[in-house]
Formats: sequence, C-alpha cells, structure tokens
Amino acid sequence: MQAPFSTFSTFRQTLAAAPSTDVRAVAGAQERNRQLTKPPGALGRLEDLAIWYAGWRGDPQPQINAPQVIVFAGNHGVCAQGVSAFPPEVTVQMVANFEHGGAAINQLSKAFGAKMDVYPLDLDIPTNDFTVGPAMSEGDCVAALQTGWNAVDPEADLLVTGEMGIGNTTSAAAISAALLGGEAGDWTGRGTGVDDDGLARKTDVVAKGLALHQNRDALEVLRCLGGRELAGMAGAIAAARHHRIPVILDGFICSAAALTLAKTADGALDHTVAGHLSAEGAHRRLLNALEKEPLLQLGLRLGEGSGGALAIGVLQGAIACHSGMATFAEAGVSDG
Amino acid sequence: MQAPFSTFSTFRQTLAAAPSTDVRAVAGAQERNRQLTKPPGALGRLEDLAIWYAGWRGDPQPQINAPQVIVFAGNHGVCAQGVSAFPPEVTVQMVANFEHGGAAINQLSKAFGAKMDVYPLDLDIPTNDFTVGPAMSEGDCVAALQTGWNAVDPEADLLVTGEMGIGNTTSAAAISAALLGGEAGDWTGRGTGVDDDGLARKTDVVAKGLALHQNRDALEVLRCLGGRELAGMAGAIAAARHHRIPVILDGFICSAAALTLAKTADGALDHTVAGHLSAEGAHRRLLNALEKEPLLQLGLRLGEGSGGALAIGVLQGAIACHSGMATFAEAGVSDG
Repeated sequence: MQAPFSTFSTFRQTLAAAPSTDVRAVAGAQERNRQLTKPPGALGRLEDLAIWYAGWRGDPQPQINAPQVIVFAGNHGVCAQGVSAFPPEVTVQMVANFEHGGAAINQLSKAFGAKMDVYPLDLDIPTNDFTVGPAMSEGDCVAALQTGWNAVDPEADLLVTGEMGIGNTTSAAAISAALLGGEAGDWTGRGTGVDDDGLARKTDVVAKGLALHQNRDALEVLRCLGGRELAGMAGAIAAARHHRIPVILDGFICSAAALTLAKTADGALDHTVAGHLSAEGAHRRLLNALEKEPLLQLGLRLGEGSGGALAIGVLQGAIACHSGMATFAEAGVSDG
Repeated sequence: MQAPFSTFSTFRQTLAAAPSTDVRAVAGAQERNRQLTKPPGALGRLEDLAIWYAGWRGDPQPQINAPQVIVFAGNHGVCAQGVSAFPPEVTVQMVANFEHGGAAINQLSKAFGAKMDVYPLDLDIPTNDFTVGPAMSEGDCVAALQTGWNAVDPEADLLVTGEMGIGNTTSAAAISAALLGGEAGDWTGRGTGVDDDGLARKTDVVAKGLALHQNRDALEVLRCLGGRELAGMAGAIAAARHHRIPVILDGFICSAAALTLAKTADGALDHTVAGHLSAEGAHRRLLNALEKEPLLQLGLRLGEGSGGALAIGVLQGAIACHSGMATFAEAGVSDG
C-alpha cells in the first residue's frame, strides 16, 4: 500500500487520523476471559495482552497467523567520529547476513513463524554527521518513513520492527535526550561495546548534536538527529496502526524511533507493547517515559528486532490461551 | 523406562549417581558462541542458556525437537480444613479438561510444539491431612516418584513438569518452610485466591504441619507434607537428569518439589532452569534459595506447568540463535 503522506505535515495528519482500538472487541474479550477455566487473573499479564490484542484486531477471540518482522538498515555519518566498536562497513555486511539467513533475527523469526523482510536504506549514502548539520533533509526523512510504511504487509497480524546501523545508538541517545530532556550522558551507553574512551567520545558527540539542533518538534528531531532506519521503523509502526496490526517494539533504537511518533500524536503507540528491556541502560528510562513495561528482560543488546521477535512467543502463548481454552461451562468445571 | 529405585534409600542412591554436564560440549558451545555474527554477549542470557543446554545434551550445536510437558494431579486431605478458594472436586474436573484439550497448559504445549501427558494420581484417595499425620506412607510416596520417573520420554529433549491439585500451595508452603526455615506466614500465600480468613486458616494449617513433622530429611518432608503430584514432579525431574534432558521448572509448587531433590543430593537441579516467577509471593524466596533466576516474570499464578511451558519459547529462541546463526567467517562480517 502506498503511503498516504509526502511531507511531515501530511504525515502528522495521517497520525492524527489513526484508528483507535475496538471497544466492543475489548469488552467481548474481557467477558470471554472471565469465563475461561482458570482462577480470575491467574494468567497474569497474558490476560491483559490478549485483551489488548483482541481490541486492535477487532476480534474478541483472535488468532496470530501471520507475524511480520521488518529490519531496516542505515548508515550514519556520525560514525566518522569513532562512536562505535565496529566499523561502518559492518552494516552492509550484516544486511548480506540477513539476506542469507545467518543472523540472530533470521533464527528468531523462523522459530516463531514470522515472515522477515530486510530494507537496506541507501547504505552507500550515510546520513550527514549531526554534529555539523541535520542528518537528513525532510525529503530524505519522508522517503524513509514512506519505505517503512509501504514495507508493512496489510495482511500481517503482528509486527516487529528492527534495525541495523553502526552508530545508531548514538542517534537514539540524541533523539531521546532532545525529546525527553536530561544530559547527553544520561542517554549514552556502550552500544555494541565501546570502551571508556569511546563512550566519552560518544557522549560528547551526542552533546554537540543536542547543542546544534535545539527546540525542534519530534519529526524535526528525527530528521536532524536520526537515521533512515529509525525513520523506516517509525513509518512502519504508523502503518501498522493504520492497518490495526499490533506491534511489539524492540530495544533502545526502535523505542527512540517510536518516541518520535508518541511526541507527534497523543496515543500514537497505543497499539504497541515493549518486547524486551535492552541491556543498554538508557532503555529503561525511555520505556518509563513511554509508560511501557517490557515483556522480557533477558539482557539482550543486539538490535535487529531480536528482543521484539523473542517476545512474539509470549504473545502467541497469550492468544493461544485466550482463544483456545475452554470456558467453565464448556468444561464442566466448578468456578469456585 | 522402569524406575531404578523402590525405596527412599535406593532413590537417594539414584540421585547420587546422576550424570553431570558434558564439559567438552560446554567448551565447544562456548567456542561456537564466540564466533557468531553478533557483538560479544549481545544475546545476553540467551547465550548462557544455549551453552547450558548444549552441555546437558552433550552437543555443542544442539536442537530442540521434542519438548515434553507432563502434568501430575493429586488430591490433598488438608483441603478439608478450608485452605483453598476452590472445592477439591475441581482437581478431577480439571484433569478432564486437560484430557479434552481445554486448559491453558494444552494451548501453551501446542503453541510451543510440546507433547503433553497427564497423570492423575489416585484422585479418589486424597493424601492424609498432614496436620494429623504424614500425608503419605513411604510406599505411596515412592509409587508417585516412580510414576513421575516412568512418565519421562527418554527421547524428549526438554521437559516441563506441571501440576494440578486443589490445596497444593499449602503443601508447597509447608515443604519450603520445613526445608528452608522461617515462619509459616513467610511461605503461605493466596494460591488460587483465598480471602483473608482463608489465608489465616491456611497459615495455621501450615504451622500445625510444621509442628507435627519436625527434623525430617528432604524425602521425609516430601512424604509427610507433600502430595502425590509433587512426588511425581520430583521423580520426573530426577529421570530427566538420568536421560540428560534439561528441565524448565514451573512455579511455586513445582519448585517446592524440586527443592526436595536439591536438599537430597548436591547439584540435583543443575540440569534445570526456572521458567517463570509466580505471583505467589513465596516463590521468589524459594528461587533465591535454589539460586535460580526466572526467565519470565509475567504475573502468572496458575500452575499446570503454564509458566514453564511459556518459557519453552525463550529456550527455543536461544537454541535457534546458537545453532542456526552464521559465524563471522561464514558470513564475511568484520568482527570489530
């Protein structure tokens, strides 16, 4: 489906016009949940997840049959300043690895029955170094949002967005600080594993970016401090809302991309849950700001959508219970 | 396979003779993990899980093809004292629900590709009320241990043990207190949902049981305060070790059964991980004593093996990554 926007202004209108959850499906799912053969509340968070998913799908007894994982890749001009433990050519090498099925996200997508698509976004044209100017033009940023929007399969019933981009924890830190406040150091971590000197350089780069691009709205922050893969994820998360496809957010970078939507339109992330708490320290702070409690906390810090994909299993379990269990009446079980 | 024990004494010998992890497979898995296309440690706990699993399977690049979930059910004489929010006939009703495929554990087993077996253990003969005498004779308890042992499919490559038994959080609390110390109230919670009066009665029942059965070794504690489904789980966990099948522990009751093994033979739970932290408050205390950090914390308090079964997905994700990912050399990716 072609993206219904071509500027930041029309993208904002698209977000503002996004559909809400189906309150009748929510009520139906709540009623069904009360009748299932278990003590009230005994499935804990699985019950909340199932009701949330039912509402977005508009079906009080839904199924998950077609999860989609989309990985967006981009390169960052800011890498020239030594902010990563890996050289920037790893981005294109890892895209080849995704395409050949060798990466973690390939295995996780397969394990949970998800279709996986990869979108390398102009890897030979890194974004501009955000310490000397905006990372992207509005046209560049909108193009990446559109690619993200168009990448979502309208027939999917669950979406995970992931990323690959050497240098992109630097972007995510800068975006988070610009939109949520605090010092550069509050949001900057070791990413793929920079040493102490690298961390100091990275923090300084984030601080310079913040100083150069002040008082911007959220889409301007995405344009000035972000990257194409972050805009791709934002576009895909917005498209999923349009198609009523629930989204599992991945880690720090995905959450920073999502933050730009939340700061553009109230409730823009209501169709999303946080899949996994990254070991990248600032992710907890970011999820707190988004009021999202992660489903998993297993110390991953890989990106690619890996934490989100792992959480597909949790959601599949929740929906399997909700939609497959017998009611007290069906099973002839006394309900206490 | 027939259980190689017929008394507590020979069961102790069986536990003492249990196999250890395969250190060569562990070393091979560690070496493989270092070569995979990701920053070192970026898959967090998934890496530890994969190496642990590889060691027990004796294969540095293992697969999970045949998970087994076994649900043991038993009835408890102590129910006569009003310790549960549900009447004891629910145990047999829920067994029928398991057999007809209507319970949560049926859906979770199916969702994660596990074979599920149900063992109702003399449901028409509840154990004795442990406030007036031992719950079981040694013969009764050994029979349940044997049933548990024999229930394990030697061809399985992952095991989850679950339970159903109205009144069995009372047993689990009493076992935990007897083997780990503390007051009855430290270990007693609301189970399926007793009210304040019920909780007070339940705590009093646990205290009476502790007073009556003092200074027992762990298998005697299982006999005097436990139930057939707890002994069944203990027997199955022991058999899994014998067959080198890793085990995912479920919630509070499963962990209390496992505790009796840990207190009988050092390292008897080295082939196990904790799948999920139950909302039953004492479970955290019990897992701390077992030095097990749960994989999931999603507020479940259902039993049946549900928390353990949900964690199968996490382990499947870990093994899929470990055994399926390309190495840096295979993928032509720079390793930093």
